[in-house]
Amino acid sequence: MIRFGVLGAGRIGKVHAATIAANPKAKLAYVADAYPAAAEQLAAQTGAKVASVEEIIASGDVDAVLIATPTPSHADLIEAASKAGKHILCEKPVSLSVDRINQCLHVVEKNKSTLMIGFNRRFDPNFSTVESRLRRGDVGDIEIVTIISRDPAPPPAEYVKSSGGLFRDMMIHDFDMARFLMGEEFVVVNALGSALVDKAIGVEGDVDTAAVQMQTASGRIAVITNSRRATYGYDQRIEVHGSTGMLSARNIQNSSVELWNASGLAGDPVQNFFIERYAQAYANEINTFIDAVDTGNTAPRPSGFDGLQAQKLADAATLSWQTGKPVQVA
Amino acid sequence: MIRFGVLGAGRIGKVHAATIAANPKAKLAYVADAYPAAAEQLAAQTGAKVASVEEIIASGDVDAVLIATPTPSHADLIEAASKAGKHILCEKPVSLSVDRINQCLHVVEKNKSTLMIGFNRRFDPNFSTVESRLRRGDVGDIEIVTIISRDPAPPPAEYVKSSGGLFRDMMIHDFDMARFLMGEEFVVVNALGSALVDKAIGVEGDVDTAAVQMQTASGRIAVITNSRRATYGYDQRIEVHGSTGMLSARNIQNSSVELWNASGLAGDPVQNFFIERYAQAYANEINTFIDAVDTGNTAPRPSGFDGLQAQKLADAATLSWQTGKPVQVA
Amino acid sequence: MIRFGVLGAGRIGKVHAATIAANPKAKLAYVADAYPAAAEQLAAQTGAKVASVEEIIASGDVDAVLIATPTPSHADLIEAASKAGKHILCEKPVSLSVDRINQCLHVVEKNKSTLMIGFNRRFDPNFSTVESRLRRGDVGDIEIVTIISRDPAPPPAEYVKSSGGLFRDMMIHDFDMARFLMGEEFVVVNALGSALVDKAIGVEGDVDTAAVQMQTASGRIAVITNSRRATYGYDQRIEVHGSTGMLSARNIQNSSVELWNASGLAGDPVQNFFIERYAQAYANEINTFIDAVDTGNTAPRPSGFDGLQAQKLADAATLSWQTGKPVQVA
Amino acid sequence: MIRFGVLGAGRIGKVHAATIAANPKAKLAYVADAYPAAAEQLAAQTGAKVASVEEIIASGDVDAVLIATPTPSHADLIEAASKAGKHILCEKPVSLSVDRINQCLHVVEKNKSTLMIGFNRRFDPNFSTVESRLRRGDVGDIEIVTIISRDPAPPPAEYVKSSGGLFRDMMIHDFDMARFLMGEEFVVVNALGSALVDKAIGVEGDVDTAAVQMQTASGRIAVITNSRRATYGYDQRIEVHGSTGMLSARNIQNSSVELWNASGLAGDPVQNFFIERYAQAYANEINTFIDAVDTGNTAPRPSGFDGLQAQKLADAATLSWQTGKPVQVA
Repeated sequence: MIRFGVLGAGRIGKVHAATIAANPKAKLAYVADAYPAAAEQLAAQTGAKVASVEEIIASGDVDAVLIATPTPSHADLIEAASKAGKHILCEKPVSLSVDRINQCLHVVEKNKSTLMIGFNRRFDPNFSTVESRLRRGDVGDIEIVTIISRDPAPPPAEYVKSSGGLFRDMMIHDFDMARFLMGEEFVVVNALGSALVDKAIGVEGDVDTAAVQMQTASGRIAVITNSRRATYGYDQRIEVHGSTGMLSARNIQNSSVELWNASGLAGDPVQNFFIERYAQAYANEINTFIDAVDTGNTAPRPSGFDGLQAQKLADAATLSWQTGKPVQVA
Repeated sequence: MIRFGVLGAGRIGKVHAATIAANPKAKLAYVADAYPAAAEQLAAQTGAKVASVEEIIASGDVDAVLIATPTPSHADLIEAASKAGKHILCEKPVSLSVDRINQCLHVVEKNKSTLMIGFNRRFDPNFSTVESRLRRGDVGDIEIVTIISRDPAPPPAEYVKSSGGLFRDMMIHDFDMARFLMGEEFVVVNALGSALVDKAIGVEGDVDTAAVQMQTASGRIAVITNSRRATYGYDQRIEVHGSTGMLSARNIQNSSVELWNASGLAGDPVQNFFIERYAQAYANEINTFIDAVDTGNTAPRPSGFDGLQAQKLADAATLSWQTGKPVQVA
Repeated sequence: MIRFGVLGAGRIGKVHAATIAANPKAKLAYVADAYPAAAEQLAAQTGAKVASVEEIIASGDVDAVLIATPTPSHADLIEAASKAGKHILCEKPVSLSVDRINQCLHVVEKNKSTLMIGFNRRFDPNFSTVESRLRRGDVGDIEIVTIISRDPAPPPAEYVKSSGGLFRDMMIHDFDMARFLMGEEFVVVNALGSALVDKAIGVEGDVDTAAVQMQTASGRIAVITNSRRATYGYDQRIEVHGSTGMLSARNIQNSSVELWNASGLAGDPVQNFFIERYAQAYANEINTFIDAVDTGNTAPRPSGFDGLQAQKLADAATLSWQTGKPVQVA
Repeated sequence: MIRFGVLGAGRIGKVHAATIAANPKAKLAYVADAYPAAAEQLAAQTGAKVASVEEIIASGDVDAVLIATPTPSHADLIEAASKAGKHILCEKPVSLSVDRINQCLHVVEKNKSTLMIGFNRRFDPNFSTVESRLRRGDVGDIEIVTIISRDPAPPPAEYVKSSGGLFRDMMIHDFDMARFLMGEEFVVVNALGSALVDKAIGVEGDVDTAAVQMQTASGRIAVITNSRRATYGYDQRIEVHGSTGMLSARNIQNSSVELWNASGLAGDPVQNFFIERYAQAYANEINTFIDAVDTGNTAPRPSGFDGLQAQKLADAATLSWQTGKPVQVA
């Protein structure tokens, strides 16, 4: 029985806590949150105890921590948990600074800690099926990866100030997905961006509409487009073109109902946002981590290195957008 | 070069005349119509000459006749053309009377004439693909044939008076399709019908909404539903369920364009009516007949027997609807 | 807090028990099963206690019973629970005998008990959306209801002996769905059936392939086809055609992944069977019952009357198939 | 009656000649080809006369010329025809040299000739519907244009030598489509390319797999990906995302037939190549030109300027790919 401490009882912390509580191999032992009421509510629902972050990390009754606190605390908490000998599952990103991630990963490596990063989309049943079929060769040699990712509505301009910008905050999921699907590192990144959805986002020095194209050393190409707004829901599509075929995963509509009348065909919008669209993915992610810990697999993916590489691509894209030039990635 | 006389220069006569004119193995020699202006217009467009029906049938310059006149004249014209040694392609139905069809087929048989009946839907590229894949075993043993067929708008109630009724006028296409797909004769027919679209159709003693279920001697089942009105276009779908799978053919939309917005997905209506939906089918039908004549195949399908069998099913369905009882088909 | 006793800890009992346990308005108090081990396992997972059926019905600690025992016990248990003042949710069917259902409903009526019947498909999010859109007029006047329902694989021939036959065991769901969608009672039923999938089913006097067409007093038509086997999964489709449009609900595939290659398009099979396909429907069903009890709604649908009417249609279809004649329904 | 001379009786010349011959406002008067046999065959099929290019341009019996000769002759023939007072429809591109195009357009402007360029895809019924709906505001303000374009199979490496390279030979269609859909000029072009399909293409200094992203002065973004090979057919998709919605046009499959079995869903490949996929587009293109000439519209689109701008984008993309840097477009 793996005893969990959940650090952060916000929206995603609650989703993960429910999965932990339902997994027979795990026990949700402790919950922490900067807002005691949030921690207490979650504890009451799940039978866990409330404790401070420090108490949880220090506790001998805890085997694993799930870090779902605000981004600036992630690296510190990973290091503390690593030193305390805990298994760690941390929400993305480790840090907005590549240097800080590197420091943090050294600590993790030194302590031989199990660290998994919460790139949830890898665990979507559709996307993970695409990836496993790519690996078994269903499209031959991969040539072009296309990712379209659009949020249903933009965040407040206020939010983007501290977000690190669209490339680090939103497109980072797509950088990880591009690496996941391609199976080869990218060496050059080209970015374009504009504030077309909300001018206030542009005033804050960020973009809400962006395109990135990347190339690997062997010449394979990935293309990502992002928008902070899609009126028809949370647009999440992938497509991989290869030498013998093309694999894709469509959007998921709210229902299978269709109306045909004099206007033609009318179908439902796509599922609105991540809690709904990736409900199964979040559960699979946690259960994958639990299985890894349970079976002694100390290198579950996505790893700290995956977190680092996605951050490097996000940095490169940000620089490319700012300078108007392609950026080489080491 | 097969020299054609087209009897009837109405809507469908014109469509067929264009196909004949474009086929390098055929020559559109003569056109006849009860309205001289119609015949002259079509002749002018195609380079054919105008002549009377009698002149065309008697002419030594004509190898084949296409009968596209009103239904009541079909059987007489088939017999006359057969006696004159012409190859014959006749629009459906041969006659609304099974007895009359039998007489007519005896004449055709006696003269060893080539007679093909214009059940155009057999030549739709989608439906003919389904049929050929059924024959090669793509679904194993056929168990259930489902046909949904809905016209975009009802005819005037005046029209239905002389039409023979929905089962003989509209569903006859589906009876032929059911036989075509099933590959086995039906022995029992059950029909339901109502006048839901236009009460005036009911006043004329006909229905505009109907369902028929039929069974073969070996127990296979076909289900047909018809409506005289579909707001979204000309609904034409088939589906065949068998022991190892299911083959179907969807409707064809006006375009592949899709709009996604806050209301969801919006696509085009389906192609509106038979001239558009079956344009390729009509051309394939004529070219199939030309190929048959050209290669000496004296038994192209659908044959006069196919016309007879469809008419028997239409009669049985009409009787079943009138009596409220199943009808055995000999 | 509504205290539940679950009678029957088989496959569907377990599904329902989990929903009850997760609903904050309900408490899973007791579990009974003829096999003590089954009851004990479910009790251990959910924190409920094991008791006998009689103890649960007699218990003052129980407000509501969920009857998920074998069919022959349903009517007796409904009566006993009704007399004991319990709210009742019973799996379909109440009984294979219409007379027995009538007796049972008199008891329920006399005691003013809340009785809901587990026609799960009404609670499928897709189908319930179709129904609510029909009621608000999205297709105008309903004219034709089409239901296609195919199980992935036939049951053992041994099973069908005691099942009441395909019309009462399998198509009863579709009879309920047809009534649910149509919103008007059917007055005539026509059935065809064959044993095409497994001859042993025919030897037992049952069919595995069937078609039913029904008509309402106002002339509306419903068509149902069933097969005990579909190689591509659990085929569950509905379509309603009306005066201003057509509403339908498609099948649900295992994933949204598509492979395009030289063979064309390849997509996933449809979800395999009811536990998976109707997972959300089962949860919605239980939660609807809990809400009804919680808010004092003593007439949740589907009601005992709905159970009765579906059974009458199943009897009529069975008789129609046996006699080869249409059957009038009172 | 507009009398046409067709210069070039190759594959596309034949397609256009058939459309001209079928248009009642036009007459196919003359055909020229470097291979006399090709000209004679086409003339025999259509009733046209054979003449030399020079004779046709000089002839007083010719109102309009259709230039379907090899690319290097296009600009010279446009100039000659312009000086001779002919209306001109020229296959793309005018020239592989932007300077040469500019010279040519000056001649056309000086003579006030009607010049239309054969970017056939603008006339595809699906794509032209998308464009007209964009112009009427169906998606609000355009933000992201996505074009995916893949040929079924690569040309011989020998061919690419003289083709001008993928960006000028293949992607030029997509540059025109991007301008057509966006309705605003692009100011920056970023290209990536690789020879992944056929190494011999790389040896010739060209690519077979490429991605381009472009931005307009107002910040709108277009993304184009090309491959010289798609195993599932001729992949031609467009999608336009805007402030209030998204419009797209799917691929067209060979048929609407679907097979469902234990492997899941199997559908047809997409239509294989341009002659089939754009059959209607080619006809619409010619008929649009004929209508323009017939109604005195001297500025049909796509114009010579459209040809020039597409060529500039192709040059910019080629340079960007070669230098690894973004290229500004004047």
